[in-house]
Amino acid sequence: MSSAPSVRDDRRFVLTLGCPDRPGIIAGITSFIAEFGGSIVEAGYHSAAGPSGLEAAARVTTEGPGAPPSNTATDTGWFFTRQAIKASTVPFELAELRDRFAGVAAEFGPETEWQLHDSGERRRAVLLVSKDGHCLHDLLGRAASGELPATIEAVIGNHPDLAGMTEAHGVKFHYVPFPKDPAERGPAFEQVRELVDGHDPHAVVLARFMQVLPAELCAHWAGKAINIHHSFLPSFVGARPYHQAFARGVKLIGATCHYVTAELDAGPIIEQDVSRIDHADDVHDMVRQGRDIERVVLARGLRWHLEGRVLVHGRRTVVFS
Amino acid sequence: MSSAPSVRDDRRFVLTLGCPDRPGIIAGITSFIAEFGGSIVEAGYHSAAGPSGLEAAARVTTEGPGAPPSNTATDTGWFFTRQAIKASTVPFELAELRDRFAGVAAEFGPETEWQLHDSGERRRAVLLVSKDGHCLHDLLGRAASGELPATIEAVIGNHPDLAGMTEAHGVKFHYVPFPKDPAERGPAFEQVRELVDGHDPHAVVLARFMQVLPAELCAHWAGKAINIHHSFLPSFVGARPYHQAFARGVKLIGATCHYVTAELDAGPIIEQDVSRIDHADDVHDMVRQGRDIERVVLARGLRWHLEGRVLVHGRRTVVFS
Amino acid sequence: MSSAPSVRDDRRFVLTLGCPDRPGIIAGITSFIAEFGGSIVEAGYHSAAGPSGLEAAARVTTEGPGAPPSNTATDTGWFFTRQAIKASTVPFELAELRDRFAGVAAEFGPETEWQLHDSGERRRAVLLVSKDGHCLHDLLGRAASGELPATIEAVIGNHPDLAGMTEAHGVKFHYVPFPKDPAERGPAFEQVRELVDGHDPHAVVLARFMQVLPAELCAHWAGKAINIHHSFLPSFVGARPYHQAFARGVKLIGATCHYVTAELDAGPIIEQDVSRIDHADDVHDMVRQGRDIERVVLARGLRWHLEGRVLVHGRRTVVFS
Amino acid sequence: MSSAPSVRDDRRFVLTLGCPDRPGIIAGITSFIAEFGGSIVEAGYHSAAGPSGLEAAARVTTEGPGAPPSNTATDTGWFFTRQAIKASTVPFELAELRDRFAGVAAEFGPETEWQLHDSGERRRAVLLVSKDGHCLHDLLGRAASGELPATIEAVIGNHPDLAGMTEAHGVKFHYVPFPKDPAERGPAFEQVRELVDGHDPHAVVLARFMQVLPAELCAHWAGKAINIHHSFLPSFVGARPYHQAFARGVKLIGATCHYVTAELDAGPIIEQDVSRIDHADDVHDMVRQGRDIERVVLARGLRWHLEGRVLVHGRRTVVFS
Repeated sequence: MSSAPSVRDDRRFVLTLGCPDRPGIIAGITSFIAEFGGSIVEAGYHSAAGPSGLEAAARVTTEGPGAPPSNTATDTGWFFTRQAIKASTVPFELAELRDRFAGVAAEFGPETEWQLHDSGERRRAVLLVSKDGHCLHDLLGRAASGELPATIEAVIGNHPDLAGMTEAHGVKFHYVPFPKDPAERGPAFEQVRELVDGHDPHAVVLARFMQVLPAELCAHWAGKAINIHHSFLPSFVGARPYHQAFARGVKLIGATCHYVTAELDAGPIIEQDVSRIDHADDVHDMVRQGRDIERVVLARGLRWHLEGRVLVHGRRTVVFS
Repeated sequence: MSSAPSVRDDRRFVLTLGCPDRPGIIAGITSFIAEFGGSIVEAGYHSAAGPSGLEAAARVTTEGPGAPPSNTATDTGWFFTRQAIKASTVPFELAELRDRFAGVAAEFGPETEWQLHDSGERRRAVLLVSKDGHCLHDLLGRAASGELPATIEAVIGNHPDLAGMTEAHGVKFHYVPFPKDPAERGPAFEQVRELVDGHDPHAVVLARFMQVLPAELCAHWAGKAINIHHSFLPSFVGARPYHQAFARGVKLIGATCHYVTAELDAGPIIEQDVSRIDHADDVHDMVRQGRDIERVVLARGLRWHLEGRVLVHGRRTVVFS
Repeated sequence: MSSAPSVRDDRRFVLTLGCPDRPGIIAGITSFIAEFGGSIVEAGYHSAAGPSGLEAAARVTTEGPGAPPSNTATDTGWFFTRQAIKASTVPFELAELRDRFAGVAAEFGPETEWQLHDSGERRRAVLLVSKDGHCLHDLLGRAASGELPATIEAVIGNHPDLAGMTEAHGVKFHYVPFPKDPAERGPAFEQVRELVDGHDPHAVVLARFMQVLPAELCAHWAGKAINIHHSFLPSFVGARPYHQAFARGVKLIGATCHYVTAELDAGPIIEQDVSRIDHADDVHDMVRQGRDIERVVLARGLRWHLEGRVLVHGRRTVVFS
Repeated sequence: MSSAPSVRDDRRFVLTLGCPDRPGIIAGITSFIAEFGGSIVEAGYHSAAGPSGLEAAARVTTEGPGAPPSNTATDTGWFFTRQAIKASTVPFELAELRDRFAGVAAEFGPETEWQLHDSGERRRAVLLVSKDGHCLHDLLGRAASGELPATIEAVIGNHPDLAGMTEAHGVKFHYVPFPKDPAERGPAFEQVRELVDGHDPHAVVLARFMQVLPAELCAHWAGKAINIHHSFLPSFVGARPYHQAFARGVKLIGATCHYVTAELDAGPIIEQDVSRIDHADDVHDMVRQGRDIERVVLARGLRWHLEGRVLVHGRRTVVFS
């Protein structure tokens, strides 16, 4: 569709890696790349403090700093990196690059986690929706114009309302009705799971899907199920956050894109943004204004996820945007 | 100090009023003003929905709108206004203006609350501080350059650290030590109360004052005690909000200026703002960045309060900024 | 389509008015409304300073304030208001309301300009496009979900590329080819004019239309032709503003929604917003990020225009948002 | 003053480097550091496209992408990096580190420019001011609380107004009167130059200094003279930008921190930010609101400069913030 990415000759092999921090990791990785003449076109690094580092940071309170942190052998931080190598400067295929890099990664210890993917290989997304179509419509438009680095393989709705909008974009829509009684929703979720997994997607996007995923599905799609919540989390968890925001009288409303975990609206945050409101804005106005933030925050978070820019570190994310 | 306001010939008589809503209030007020040829240079109006209006708004959920609201006689909303009248166009003194207006206000019912103040009469503020000086330093600078529509009458600290900074600006500093045991802090609070009340201030500003006011003081200073909290409330109530924000992994940090009430960090919000952070920012960075938001949010909220722009409506504020 | 507005029982008669400023105008208008028991649900007022007021403001420079302004008889400012009256509280039809109000307006002098429109009467918009579809797609989605207070009557393109996207939303697309030689484009513009005028639209939206309108068309559509320019005007007028922004090394990019006038990209600004970029963002990234601002800024400006919230005052706008 | 930085044990040796881009540079630098066991606590990289890369980017216009870029031997991009090495992990002194690194840098070609500085060595700033004190007051407060990584060595004013504020902070103030006739200001600038150079500062800050530096001084202080301009450049170059902004009717006002060059307000931009205004804000309001942006933008840009985070690339900056 869009040839924008390809015209930039920017097919890349993208390495993402996390491991216990120690000197020499960057040198190890970049020397490996330099040996075959690879050109690094984008590089991000982050050293996350270990427990005592965090504790030390915590002592720098507004009531004054505390004692300096002690660095003991057990106080290990964590190292994260993302490297994008120009594919045309790599003299072998991705599979061989992976094989060769495995040797380098082994030196960083058994806890090391890494991935190497080809930016030229299009990624797949499946969307879950209910009745609210603004995020769906926005993502369909981005996919059509090549702004989203993925194809939308299918849209699954627990209401049939958005079938028309989906199919007008040439995308398959599956209607999976959900029973009123939450206790009886198991089979519906099972059907959703099968439909989703049939596409082996890189991202399962809850684009204003108004059903809470059961814990098993959260675990099954861990690290690839992405939700857009219409509040600035952790404020206003759960249902009707704009009503909660109105009642509390906040002066900014927000939206949060996060990974789905079993604890409701508590997964690692990928992206957030806010919009100013005032006393004259009622809930209706907030819903309208909020849509503009939800669209952009979800699209941004999803793109970062698809491009391998998001690494999870406990309850936090590292985003090499 | 600064003659900026006066050069604009903008001495104003400022009316603020809240009453049960019904047709004709604006006409009543503005006709009264027009009769003596008064020139309204700034006018703000707000009709807050009554209970059933709010409920109706609540039905416009993201799952679809509900039934239209019923308008019964008991479903009364509330009306708020702020009118700034050019003083030079008023042919009598403020006291007489008040007397005359009392007759108009009486028609709007016994629940009506209103005030008329003279913008040419400088307002008085007293500041409470602890060790953190950034908000204090900022307000002292604004007062000195005429940016703050008030004189800072005194600064009271539960630590002596900020005495020098205060006195360098020619402002009196009172050090009131607080005992470690919260149960024994009563006399200290009593002393603070006397010092504050001695100035009969229009605003009591908790400029990063790290003591929780007892309920009696909250009630005593209701509507004029203003706090700056270093989080985007209602997230991260209480102590060390930047640490809470770091642990939760939010992508924006914020600050909130609000009226002090007996429930901690839960008073009506006057102003809020946020600043973007990322994974590389530790608590120390957040403290530094947060200071820039705290300063501006407090200064803005305080100015609006002093200029009679903030009206309280339950747990929410109407701000005619 | 969307019943969101109607469910709020908010059919309104909306008055917008501009006239030479003098005491008593608000009283005159609101007394007229109060007489028949009309309920004002939204009210905005603005007194724009006259020439000497502006000059006085100009003297308040950062090098210190100048002399106070003199108020002479010839120094007339301008008064603007927008009043939204709940239609259900008006005991007669719009036509009669207009007739009755004409008498009130006459008292404000011959220069007075005013309009009264019925918010329940859907407005009509026609869109002009080229190849870039993101603004078109966004507006089609808003119209479909009832977020845009208008129907999109037709889309006209000087390229055929966006016909499919338009027609998928059930909207008529007209392809009007433009000759390469600017000197020969007269007949094409004439055809566009006829197509547009056939719908008698309230708004003619240049949704990334890459042709400069001839001066006659600007005059013909004055006050209803709205453009979205992909820079923070007045920076980067004309072609390829993101390239200009990249070359200049700015740290924020922006978008501007403005009325079209004969002077290129110099018409009264309705709305603007910006987005942060950094050194790592190339023109391609700026184009992508810019689309998110363009969409929102255009949608916001267009909605305000359609709801009668924008009044033009010389080269500036008054926006009762 | 503030012990906040030191408590974090974060004395660092900071390397900044720019050179023609080619594979292997990162590996060369990080291998050098790894050899002696150095711990990199912060790393930033940027590959700026060469001329044909820029041209290719330029072809990705909104009218559609152009042909792919050709990579010829002469099309060299530029590589920038900033590495912060934990000083306690470096087994020799800064001087020796410099000597050793010189050998590494030599391999990157004769155009390579690099610096290595010790974050533990406090930097020196000299401030130039006129009558407007808000930026001065803000920087004095930051310096006093340890927020600014520099000592303010002296303040020089072409008006005596700010002497009191400066001296209250224990900083030396020099009053250098400037003649009315611009042609006769040479000796005054000469005196300023001598006063400034006597402190051998890392930064010469024009904190709302209302005199245009002569070209020789711009050249003499190239890369260390920093100005805060009260507009969102390149809009509103020169005098009275808020008046220009008011006349143009923009909806956001801004401030720009940039390096001073001989062309007025056209030097490389370090940082910018904006604030929303509306039709009700006159020039006086814009001046007030603008001060809040100016303070923060200048403080942020100055800190980045002092910490070696800003590298200049032609008319643009690379900021490793």
